[in-house]
Amino acid sequence: VKKLYIIKIGGNIIDDANALDKFLSDFSNIKGLKILVHGGGKIATELAKKLGIAQTLVGGRRITDAETLKVTAMVYAGLVNKQIVALLQSHGVNALGLCGADANAIQSDKRNVKDVDYGFVGDITPSGIHSDLLSAFLEMGLVPVFSAITHNGKGQLLNTNADTIAATLAAALSKNYTVQLNYCFEKKGVLEHIDQEDSVIKTITQAQYRQLLLAGIISKGMIPKLDNAFEAIQKGVPYVVISHADDLINTTKNEHGGTTLVA
Amino acid sequence: VKKLYIIKIGGNIIDDANALDKFLSDFSNIKGLKILVHGGGKIATELAKKLGIAQTLVGGRRITDAETLKVTAMVYAGLVNKQIVALLQSHGVNALGLCGADANAIQSDKRNVKDVDYGFVGDITPSGIHSDLLSAFLEMGLVPVFSAITHNGKGQLLNTNADTIAATLAAALSKNYTVQLNYCFEKKGVLEHIDQEDSVIKTITQAQYRQLLLAGIISKGMIPKLDNAFEAIQKGVPYVVISHADDLINTTKNEHGGTTLVA
Repeated sequence: VKKLYIIKIGGNIIDDANALDKFLSDFSNIKGLKILVHGGGKIATELAKKLGIAQTLVGGRRITDAETLKVTAMVYAGLVNKQIVALLQSHGVNALGLCGADANAIQSDKRNVKDVDYGFVGDITPSGIHSDLLSAFLEMGLVPVFSAITHNGKGQLLNTNADTIAATLAAALSKNYTVQLNYCFEKKGVLEHIDQEDSVIKTITQAQYRQLLLAGIISKGMIPKLDNAFEAIQKGVPYVVISHADDLINTTKNEHGGTTLVA
Repeated sequence: VKKLYIIKIGGNIIDDANALDKFLSDFSNIKGLKILVHGGGKIATELAKKLGIAQTLVGGRRITDAETLKVTAMVYAGLVNKQIVALLQSHGVNALGLCGADANAIQSDKRNVKDVDYGFVGDITPSGIHSDLLSAFLEMGLVPVFSAITHNGKGQLLNTNADTIAATLAAALSKNYTVQLNYCFEKKGVLEHIDQEDSVIKTITQAQYRQLLLAGIISKGMIPKLDNAFEAIQKGVPYVVISHADDLINTTKNEHGGTTLVA
């Protein structure tokens, strides 16, 4: 079984041209099969502001109305995705930029309206990942680069969380590959003390995660990321690494760096 | 040798949701291998205006400064491309949205500054088309959908005329396929009298084109389109059809419709 790296890069790195360039250079040095998943950073929020599109947040989550969806499609699937693809090409990586509608790679369902109508947000399950063509792309030497836009199969684009896309891709592709899922962001890993950058927890098991949650150790912003990661682990991904973007190469060499999540 | 349809759809159709939907429905009914190339319509101009990005035109051509390039990448490769891909998926077409950077499909050179600096505009030649992966995509049952953004291989995205992309793709792919190139727009073909919608010239040879140019029959806006088309014909494309978007199905069945350009 071949190894496949699925690397999620966070918004704060995308917003910093130097950090992004270093990250993409490191990414280009990973040997073997790989997929990149990216968020959009602050560019979408800034563009919405410039266009006078009011952004509504409910419980920290953005409501994706029709105009906001257009902004995210433009920024994520257009500007950011194609800039990353062009930069990777300059590093010798044959990148192929995709959103979920392309090659019908990721189909999602518009989130049901319960207490809150999140608007044009798509939830995905592993069965929404159509991995045959993705595997074919990988075998052709291509490196898929996913923006966080999916579709419902009925002509509607939908906004989907990039962490969830990475985890769901990892779960679906773990049938054909030994997948290593990496979440790269601007911190050194999961921190025991949120204000102490070096208090990285080296390893977290699912049982330990529950205890850390009960003890209130895990910061609010990290919980969805860790929930996504452990869901991928339950669905067959051997382990997930959460690390600083600068530590990407170390973590792909199984050397020191970041937090490793295991079953 | 298999037949391959390369269809260019113009901006005026993209700006009209009903016309676009009808066109994409017709496109989905074309049997066999096909590629769609689209422009961006007025959306990019409108977005630039809303963002206060001044648009400079020299001789009818837009100057692509850094901010305008971002707008075109967002609108062409993001919003318009992904909406078209999602709509085609809903019509059962396994569309794959591409810009030239994706899979390194179309590499271009930034236009030399002579009298005018056009900015981030890329000129392409058939050698800039990397058709091996494109052919592989076609054989996998995918339908490539190109936005008019290319790259220079050094990390720079570039704006490229969609008519030229369609013609250059047609020329490059005519080595492997019998290519029919169709330019679909909002007129019924090349008109003998610009104010008479039904004065469509049925057939134009290269020699007749020169005479029509000398006689001042061809309207200014049509000249680049026809130049592109005859260049494709010189490079091996058997014929090019220029027609109304509504006549797409007729023209692919070799029935009446539009203007046919031949050697």
